[in-house]
Amino acid sequence: MHRGNVSGPLTIQAQGSFAVGGTVLKTPGSYDNNKPAAAGQSFHGDHLYAFYQVPQNPKALPIVMLHGAFQSARSWESTSDGREGFQTLFLRRGFPVYLVDQPRRGRAGNSTIATTIEPTPNDQLFFDQFRIGKWPSYFDNVQFDRKPETLEQFFRSVTPNTGPYDAAVISDAMSALFAKTGPAILFTHSQGGGPGWLTAIRSPNVKAIVAFEPGSGFIFPQGELPPAMPSAAGTLAPEAVSQAEFEKLTRIPIVIYYGDNFPVEPTPERGQDNWRVRLAMARLWVDAVNRHGGDARLVHLPEIGVRGNTHFLMSDLNNVEIAELVSKFLAEKKLD
Amino acid sequence: MHRGNVSGPLTIQAQGSFAVGGTVLKTPGSYDNNKPAAAGQSFHGDHLYAFYQVPQNPKALPIVMLHGAFQSARSWESTSDGREGFQTLFLRRGFPVYLVDQPRRGRAGNSTIATTIEPTPNDQLFFDQFRIGKWPSYFDNVQFDRKPETLEQFFRSVTPNTGPYDAAVISDAMSALFAKTGPAILFTHSQGGGPGWLTAIRSPNVKAIVAFEPGSGFIFPQGELPPAMPSAAGTLAPEAVSQAEFEKLTRIPIVIYYGDNFPVEPTPERGQDNWRVRLAMARLWVDAVNRHGGDARLVHLPEIGVRGNTHFLMSDLNNVEIAELVSKFLAEKKLD
Repeated sequence: MHRGNVSGPLTIQAQGSFAVGGTVLKTPGSYDNNKPAAAGQSFHGDHLYAFYQVPQNPKALPIVMLHGAFQSARSWESTSDGREGFQTLFLRRGFPVYLVDQPRRGRAGNSTIATTIEPTPNDQLFFDQFRIGKWPSYFDNVQFDRKPETLEQFFRSVTPNTGPYDAAVISDAMSALFAKTGPAILFTHSQGGGPGWLTAIRSPNVKAIVAFEPGSGFIFPQGELPPAMPSAAGTLAPEAVSQAEFEKLTRIPIVIYYGDNFPVEPTPERGQDNWRVRLAMARLWVDAVNRHGGDARLVHLPEIGVRGNTHFLMSDLNNVEIAELVSKFLAEKKLD
Repeated sequence: MHRGNVSGPLTIQAQGSFAVGGTVLKTPGSYDNNKPAAAGQSFHGDHLYAFYQVPQNPKALPIVMLHGAFQSARSWESTSDGREGFQTLFLRRGFPVYLVDQPRRGRAGNSTIATTIEPTPNDQLFFDQFRIGKWPSYFDNVQFDRKPETLEQFFRSVTPNTGPYDAAVISDAMSALFAKTGPAILFTHSQGGGPGWLTAIRSPNVKAIVAFEPGSGFIFPQGELPPAMPSAAGTLAPEAVSQAEFEKLTRIPIVIYYGDNFPVEPTPERGQDNWRVRLAMARLWVDAVNRHGGDARLVHLPEIGVRGNTHFLMSDLNNVEIAELVSKFLAEKKLD
């Protein structure tokens, strides 16, 4: 049951949770306490939920971790095979850690906009798209445990949107979170990449971004947008922001990591081609940030000899090695 | 930010999260990796999500905490005014603690049955029904901090069902959780009371139940059902189980707590009358358990001089006092 206790006990100075950001809807009329209806009542929604832990003798900058699509803060907790995820690994490295459920997801489920949720069968698509393999085969070198119960845990880490996905709503709440945490480092995963850039534009408290396989929301300055990139998984289009907004991204160090098992040339394999264009767009994005005087870097892990990573780098079998790469980056940038 | 560090550091031996229970839906047909559709794909849903922490030198029996309606594991974390909730208070008391998001709620959002979620304004109803006061006035003695940001946190702890509420689905997943934890103590809140009794019937690993203001699912043996109880908040009806099932509840110690600010005589005040009938039904329930040879007890807190508690006893200003009552109960039953 309690695996992963490989590094001895963990001493926590404080832990807890809260909501931040969001809006309030109000229905006109007066509230009748004994015949309650919508009239005169309010609804709090579109906030995010955060769980924080502060270790003893903490480093100065906390790390805020934002999950990707179909996921929650669960992404950063235990790995699917039950080892320690980045929440606990970075606590052990001395950082206060904040895990977010973004607005309209997980425990931050109250959405100001209605939605319908259906049990959509996506397991096999996720297996392919998140590069565990090509269903039903695992990639030979994949850093994913092959016990059936591990795959089951992976599939059960999925949780739906409880309202329409809206990067602006997410980055509004994330900015409110950074106002509360003070200066901090932002980790994003996948779909979280886009709202992550927007949060750094909005909040001067974002002191660095570590983006794991950003999947959408690649923003470029007006007039500098590269062409959209077609792929077997659809077309990836860049998005425009103002020059002034874009240049806020040049104030902080940024590193982007992508894993293994997708080609740099087009392939009809949908699950892999999806990442070919994302890697290519991310390279252009890094170039754009640096052209404007920024400090961005892209690490395609196979190029440095780190093989077999899925889309969930922070949960892979070599996640301690990935954490070590991140730690070295943070040390180099004097953020630890 | 980091309040509640009143008791010194907390040493954690292991922490993490997982899913347990649930079912798998499968769509007939064959999956085409490069043209993915529903055909041949599966969907994992109706599991629960649990986050666990094990302190150093833990007591033998973990505590599993199950939230109520419109809530998630969030209920047991920080209080709305930012103090330590029962998760951390009972970790400090040496218990491994498991916090649950029940199936179709929070991070266990994948439901096998579709639903529509709408932003339903309920804040004022919750204020009344959870006995913070009679909107917009607080009860004079209420154990709830009056800062506006505290009420805002309370309202933002609400999160919707992502599928139809189903006590059987919940108790199935809870039974699977207790199979995994081994013998353990169950804490339930409000709507969690009903699935809690069902879990104890299903799983011999439930060694005691501490129920905070159970709100529904009062089960009686066939032929021994008391009359339904009308109230200003609707009618509360008992539910039937077999004699054999009911008698499984007589194997374990059970304690039920109810708070303050509702009368024992009928009142037109909806938010209070709701609890009048629940207290009355719970008394009949405790009598039935004990009549069958069980060990159940009901504590109406004002009767022992503990005043001002809302429906969220575990988060109230006097939550350390409530924790102390629970600890004494567990010690008396040799469960600590």
